[in-house]
Amino acid sequence: MLSINNIKFIKSLQQKKFRIESGLFVVEGEKIVDEALNFVPEFIECVYHTSDYNIAPNERPQEIITNKELSRISSLKNPNKCLALIQTGFRPKVSDKNIGTLILDGIQDPGNLGTIIRTADWFGIKKIVCSEDTVDIFNPKVLQSTMGSIFHIQISYTNILDYLSKANGNIYGAVLDGNSFNHVAFENDPIIVIGNESKGISSEVKALLTHPITIEKIGQAESLNAGIATGIILSKWRMM
Amino acid sequence: MLSINNIKFIKSLQQKKFRIESGLFVVEGEKIVDEALNFVPEFIECVYHTSDYNIAPNERPQEIITNKELSRISSLKNPNKCLALIQTGFRPKVSDKNIGTLILDGIQDPGNLGTIIRTADWFGIKKIVCSEDTVDIFNPKVLQSTMGSIFHIQISYTNILDYLSKANGNIYGAVLDGNSFNHVAFENDPIIVIGNESKGISSEVKALLTHPITIEKIGQAESLNAGIATGIILSKWRMM
Repeated sequence: MLSINNIKFIKSLQQKKFRIESGLFVVEGEKIVDEALNFVPEFIECVYHTSDYNIAPNERPQEIITNKELSRISSLKNPNKCLALIQTGFRPKVSDKNIGTLILDGIQDPGNLGTIIRTADWFGIKKIVCSEDTVDIFNPKVLQSTMGSIFHIQISYTNILDYLSKANGNIYGAVLDGNSFNHVAFENDPIIVIGNESKGISSEVKALLTHPITIEKIGQAESLNAGIATGIILSKWRMM
Repeated sequence: MLSINNIKFIKSLQQKKFRIESGLFVVEGEKIVDEALNFVPEFIECVYHTSDYNIAPNERPQEIITNKELSRISSLKNPNKCLALIQTGFRPKVSDKNIGTLILDGIQDPGNLGTIIRTADWFGIKKIVCSEDTVDIFNPKVLQSTMGSIFHIQISYTNILDYLSKANGNIYGAVLDGNSFNHVAFENDPIIVIGNESKGISSEVKALLTHPITIEKIGQAESLNAGIATGIILSKWRMM
């Protein structure tokens, strides 16, 4: 049975400061807990689950709880069988042969960040570097919208200006006044920068792009969603 | 000054049944109200706005209200200067020369639908046909995420099986077991089908595709977001 302190503690992890303090974050639902068990089992602190969710006994620290208890610790309207506490310092095992790095410059919307991570995962990106003002990947809305992809990619936060200044290789980024996207040739191991939803890539970062590219607007839309731009660019790269 | 009945009526339009009953829907915020004034002025029933939002006097039926009144009729946390009632039967002026039709087969998430409409608009699509079980375009979340693109495209709801059975031309759709996306050649005036977020294109519709195509998965993501798939396909078509 969960103690009141335990319930309070788990609920507190919905706030960033308590995640930083404890070094733990929460994932919820069968799909994403399955992914954590498959990809980062050694970083799982505890799986809380109802009796109808099956994980091998003793495989990981676990506690069987009632549906009512699950509702009390969940942030979802419809809690789904399980919830796991995971160390924020988890590191997915990623092969050395991976190519392509995605740089995120100030993504603010949690749903956008989750979708970008999932899209990067679809196209086989294994490394994402976020600017320090990008929204926290352990935000519950980010985690839900990654659908487990967070456990397939190495994601870090850093000063991306420093990072890009020291980087070798070509740096691509979508801007409004770049070269036509139709004619861009991606190299095999590109660094691709995606900018903030409303402001785009910051001017300091833009100055470091070796390949500023533009996805031409044919119609009248106000802007292109950052996740959509990510999908279009990664798809073009992978089609080369 | 707004009467209590007026406030109740405007708030009621957040629900689909009252939109159907009255034939009116609500848009909020400067950007989207500006777009409505530019693109469908004759279908605007009334613009309610604070004194710091400028539209030409008498240009459209309008009423100046206080910030407090705006908060009472708004569905936004941070209401933004104006709110307009518009006829659901509005028809944007669209030139005859437009090419490309987007068919939506059961999109359920309002944010996804809004992003898909905005992405279609970016790539110059002027006609979207939605299956009857696609989420309502007048849902406030859909409208906000279109960012005004709803006023640039003709959007209708119909039985898409009937529609596609009678359609001339090639029908493209993203499926899991189609032909490689890299090699697909789009014709000039394609019909492109986007399926439901979790179930994809329904089997009856799938049988009508002349070009089932697959955006190859290289990594380990569970799925590709429907909006991202739309962006990738439309971008490829426009690059031909």
